[in-house]
Amino acid sequence: MRIAVLGTGTVGRTIATKLVELGHEVTMGSRDAAGEAVTEWAAENGEGASAGTFADAASAGEVVFNCTAGTASLSALEAAGAESLAGKVLVDVANPLDFSRGMPPRLSVCNDDSLSEQIQRAFPEARVVKALNTVNAAVMVNPGALSEPSDIPVCGEDASAKETVAKLLEDFGWPAERVLDLGPITSARGMEMYLPLWLALMGAVGGPGFNVRVVRAS
Amino acid sequence: MRIAVLGTGTVGRTIATKLVELGHEVTMGSRDAAGEAVTEWAAENGEGASAGTFADAASAGEVVFNCTAGTASLSALEAAGAESLAGKVLVDVANPLDFSRGMPPRLSVCNDDSLSEQIQRAFPEARVVKALNTVNAAVMVNPGALSEPSDIPVCGEDASAKETVAKLLEDFGWPAERVLDLGPITSARGMEMYLPLWLALMGAVGGPGFNVRVVRAS
Repeated sequence: MRIAVLGTGTVGRTIATKLVELGHEVTMGSRDAAGEAVTEWAAENGEGASAGTFADAASAGEVVFNCTAGTASLSALEAAGAESLAGKVLVDVANPLDFSRGMPPRLSVCNDDSLSEQIQRAFPEARVVKALNTVNAAVMVNPGALSEPSDIPVCGEDASAKETVAKLLEDFGWPAERVLDLGPITSARGMEMYLPLWLALMGAVGGPGFNVRVVRAS
Repeated sequence: MRIAVLGTGTVGRTIATKLVELGHEVTMGSRDAAGEAVTEWAAENGEGASAGTFADAASAGEVVFNCTAGTASLSALEAAGAESLAGKVLVDVANPLDFSRGMPPRLSVCNDDSLSEQIQRAFPEARVVKALNTVNAAVMVNPGALSEPSDIPVCGEDASAKETVAKLLEDFGWPAERVLDLGPITSARGMEMYLPLWLALMGAVGGPGFNVRVVRAS
């Protein structure tokens, strides 16, 4: 599949590298197509990997991963272009974390709204699915490194888009029964508002290599 | 131990009943000491159970559980009285959920602040510990009903207050190693902001009888 990964940070590089390993044709998009991070990544990852602008990547991809910083996502997607996003599955991995006032970070949007809802409103023809924002990059693409199976929530308005994402998550190593469909895109509020707890848990656990597993009544 | 439980809803009654079963002397406090919920509860629970106003309960208890609705907690604690709370462990179980605009509910305070911090600021001599707000009432006092051990976070400024709460949680059935100390009272932001995700998970799981278990790197 042709996949666009927008964003050249740890999350973008980790997901893009995994997708190349899985045999996809991946275009990593950045603000500057000649930027060091993106050209280096493309050079290191062989034939399936290429570099471009946000617009190059979005027009090439059949599925688009938003791995930009949450506070910059709307402008990155604007640069990608509404026409290039129309009809496509847009996997929103970003968290709207604002560290400018110190720890714990604020969310730049929450409670009555979420980043994923903002994205869905700004790009109504994209099929937005929130996913993977509840774990760190290493866990996203290698959930089997944890000591037990754990859960990964997704949400969005489009059922077939969620199915496409669920299949990609299975390819990443998430068991099908551990992909939890939380329903409509409004559930992105909860998935994003989990981040302050995630950060506190990271402190208690001693690092970012963890996730949670839902335990039900026996 | 003499324990006050403020609030006569499901959470207050469930915790108060469990504490009586454990042999504590429990005073359930309500706005109206002659109210049906509180007098009925006291009559049903025998010698260890008594009913009173918020002030009666807070003055009688060595430990105080705030099980009032989050949006009413500050006024309930005001009625309980700062002098009666001074020096005492105040276990804040409440969530500042506002359902007035429908589902998913808003939090009446979040992001830069939390209910527990508001309470700690309003009653600086109380030793506030956030605990138990991340699970439903039945799970709070019977975590063993779930199919696997799960985790219960706590936070607060006072280490010995957290130890007191951890011992009570162990009496409720929480394994000591599953009581996760998330550090300072600011972590209550994350514990409260988890609620929208909890509600979405409840929908996916099919009911409130669940919790999460932190899974670490193997």
